[in-house]
Amino acid sequence: MGVTLDVEGMSCQHCVANVKKSLEALDGVTQATPDLGSGKVVIEGIKLDNEELKKAIVSAGYRVK
Amino acid sequence: MGVTLDVEGMSCQHCVANVKKSLEALDGVTQATPDLGSGKVVIEGIKLDNEELKKAIVSAGYRVK
Repeated sequence: MGVTLDVEGMSCQHCVANVKKSLEALDGVTQATPDLGSGKVVIEGIKLDNEELKKAIVSAGYRVK
Repeated sequence: MGVTLDVEGMSCQHCVANVKKSLEALDGVTQATPDLGSGKVVIEGIKLDNEELKKAIVSAGYRVK
């Protein structure tokens, strides 16, 4: 899953590291994996997990319908 | 937008504050708004914004196709 973008201009591992660092600095991005060969970067982010939300409510002593 | 859940057991503003605090403590939750009258809580979270991702790549000196 996650978002995949096509990046132009990455010519070395230094570029890969730059792109990775720039994306992972963003709020909500958990992991960015640029690939030099394909020029693609796969970006994973925080997602709201319904089960996790419900668990937090139940842990606080309430119920979820 | 956001996720809406039905909470049972909230009987006062103290409960509302508890539910709010429990949800906002979760990674990725930006705002939780429980309503005592309806028993519903609206939960907003961080979303990956494509434009923001592209901007980060461009700012680093690369282009996005």
